[in-house]
Amino acid sequence: MKILGIEHIGIAVNDLANDSPFWNHILNIKHHSTETVESQGVTTDIYDTQKGKVELLESLKPDSPISKFIDKKGSGIHHVCFEVDDITNAIKELKENNIQVLTDKYLIGAEGFKVVFIHPKSTGGVLVELAEKP
Amino acid sequence: MKILGIEHIGIAVNDLANDSPFWNHILNIKHHSTETVESQGVTTDIYDTQKGKVELLESLKPDSPISKFIDKKGSGIHHVCFEVDDITNAIKELKENNIQVLTDKYLIGAEGFKVVFIHPKSTGGVLVELAEKP
Repeated sequence: MKILGIEHIGIAVNDLANDSPFWNHILNIKHHSTETVESQGVTTDIYDTQKGKVELLESLKPDSPISKFIDKKGSGIHHVCFEVDDITNAIKELKENNIQVLTDKYLIGAEGFKVVFIHPKSTGGVLVELAEKP
Repeated sequence: MKILGIEHIGIAVNDLANDSPFWNHILNIKHHSTETVESQGVTTDIYDTQKGKVELLESLKPDSPISKFIDKKGSGIHHVCFEVDDITNAIKELKENNIQVLTDKYLIGAEGFKVVFIHPKSTGGVLVELAEKP
C-alpha cells in the first residue's frame, strides 16, 4: 500500500469548550471544521496545521468508543490516521497479511473520507486509521 | 507561535524487533534512521511518510519515561511533536500563558532538533513536543 502522510491525529477530550482553546489559541492552529459523526458517536473539532490535522473528539453518549477509551485510559491521543492512495487495495493487503481490521469494508468518516481502522492488537497497541480522500 | 506541521508521532513499543515490521513492511513507510538518545533513555527508530514521521521508542532502562508510560498505560502513542519556526519564542509564549513546560530551555533531541515538552496537564492529557529544525 502507499501511505501519503499523516492525515491527522485523533484526540479524545472530555469537553471541547474547555479543551479546544489550547490547540486553537495557544498553539495557534487554524480551525478547519466541526462535524457530528453519528456512526462514531462523536463531535469532531478539526484544526489544520497544513501538514497534518488535529481532530478533537468529544463523545455524544456514554457508550461510544471515545467514552470507553477515556474511562480506561483517560483523555489523550486516541488514534493516528494515515492518508492512503487506495483504501480498497489497502484493506485487501492488510487481510492478506492477517492484520485485524475493524470492518471488512471502508466506512465514511469525517470530511467524507473513506476510512478503516486497524485493531491495536495488530500494531503494538496503536489504533491506526487509514483514509482515502473523497 | 507558528506551528509548521506535525513533525512526528512518538510510539512507545515493548520491543523494536517485534513491533517495527508493522510500520516498515505492512504500512510500507520508509525507514529513516535509528538513534540512541541517552538523555531520554530510549532507542528511536524513525520512519518517514514524507508528511510526518513515525518515531518508535524502545526504552533502554526500567526507569525511563517510556518504561513508566508502558507500565501505566501500555504500549501505544506516547506523544505528538509539532515543528515550530522558533522554539525560544514558543517557550516564552507558553510561559506567558501559564502553560507548563517540562524544561525552562530547549533540549537537543533526536536528529539534532531543539525540543521542549509541554505537560499533559496543560493540554487535556496529551504530551506535546515542540521542535525546531537544527
